[in-house]
Amino acid sequence: MSGEEACFEAGIKLGALYHQFIGTPVSEESVGSLETAVEEAVESQRYVVEASVSIDDVEHNRFGYDELEGTMLNVEVVVEKDGVAVEASMDEEDGYPMMRIDGVRDV
Amino acid sequence: MSGEEACFEAGIKLGALYHQFIGTPVSEESVGSLETAVEEAVESQRYVVEASVSIDDVEHNRFGYDELEGTMLNVEVVVEKDGVAVEASMDEEDGYPMMRIDGVRDV
Amino acid sequence: MSGEEACFEAGIKLGALYHQFIGTPVSEESVGSLETAVEEAVESQRYVVEASVSIDDVEHNRFGYDELEGTMLNVEVVVEKDGVAVEASMDEEDGYPMMRIDGVRDV
Amino acid sequence: MSGEEACFEAGIKLGALYHQFIGTPVSEESVGSLETAVEEAVESQRYVVEASVSIDDVEHNRFGYDELEGTMLNVEVVVEKDGVAVEASMDEEDGYPMMRIDGVRDV
Repeated sequence: MSGEEACFEAGIKLGALYHQFIGTPVSEESVGSLETAVEEAVESQRYVVEASVSIDDVEHNRFGYDELEGTMLNVEVVVEKDGVAVEASMDEEDGYPMMRIDGVRDV
Repeated sequence: MSGEEACFEAGIKLGALYHQFIGTPVSEESVGSLETAVEEAVESQRYVVEASVSIDDVEHNRFGYDELEGTMLNVEVVVEKDGVAVEASMDEEDGYPMMRIDGVRDV
Repeated sequence: MSGEEACFEAGIKLGALYHQFIGTPVSEESVGSLETAVEEAVESQRYVVEASVSIDDVEHNRFGYDELEGTMLNVEVVVEKDGVAVEASMDEEDGYPMMRIDGVRDV
Repeated sequence: MSGEEACFEAGIKLGALYHQFIGTPVSEESVGSLETAVEEAVESQRYVVEASVSIDDVEHNRFGYDELEGTMLNVEVVVEKDGVAVEASMDEEDGYPMMRIDGVRDV
């Protein structure tokens, strides 16, 4: 069976996460709580089995903080729908926050 | 060939649109420009062939405006990747902003 | 001396917080991490001395989660600029997420 | 009379605008509709008399589009509350999207 529906759902979750949180003020002190919140926000949604989120390269402007950009995000998410599990991820590739399907399997 | 990759991209676009624009202040006067901007923002992204966006049920609070909510959005998007075209859409279904795949075909 | 500059900064922080996080998927399980992340995001910004954030009335749609709306937010923030401290807050008032200045004093 | 309340409202509008629209996909073709939509979204809110928005430095990644960043925004807004008008603006200053009060006057 095709995993089209499950891949669609995985895409929704990554697109949603990205555009919800990009622009959030973040510092070295607050990055941990932001990672946890993003992870749990993704996991609260339907079809999501598991999510892990890390944020790297937090720098700071002259006022002591940074803003979350797409290339700072490292995300892995597993969604299941209609008996198909999809693993998908996002991370920086040549300066672009690339989203990709890493695996599709029956469950 | 499976449309998994194209369905993944369609999901990304709908999830992104949703979480980028939800919360935008909107009135009966500004709804037209918001529809156009959302449509063109979606169409600027890769793999997107066409998008159409309408926003309904704009009401106003006692200060004369409303905020964009998911159930106000009616979106149709066509994406193409690797020789497969996917039509996907979002609209209200029983009070929930439902996203769905409407068709997958080789092109 | 007038607190205009400090009040301007307090307004920026509340407007920013609101439109950054509205729409975030949230459940009873994830609400704690979201509160912490919003609080620390506000505190990472310049001029902010202290912020406290609580989110109430998290319900769930038929898929088990909710989305953050303005009326669910209870926020208190203290900012200081040019020797003036401003306390400002946001919470629901007659169904509207009202933002207000609670106090301005020299420090 | 002090313009603290009006300055607070001006700050809310700039902070809101920033965190609502940052991250929006934008290209040379779509920048005009995004400018109009941001402008009208700001003007739909209470206390706002006038807003003007321009977006510059739209470039494109290897997929043909860009994302709205704070430093690309040039915004002027006039708000009035309790007989005081405030002019405020945002634009790039040394790589930072600086928001400032440009004038406060009785009306």
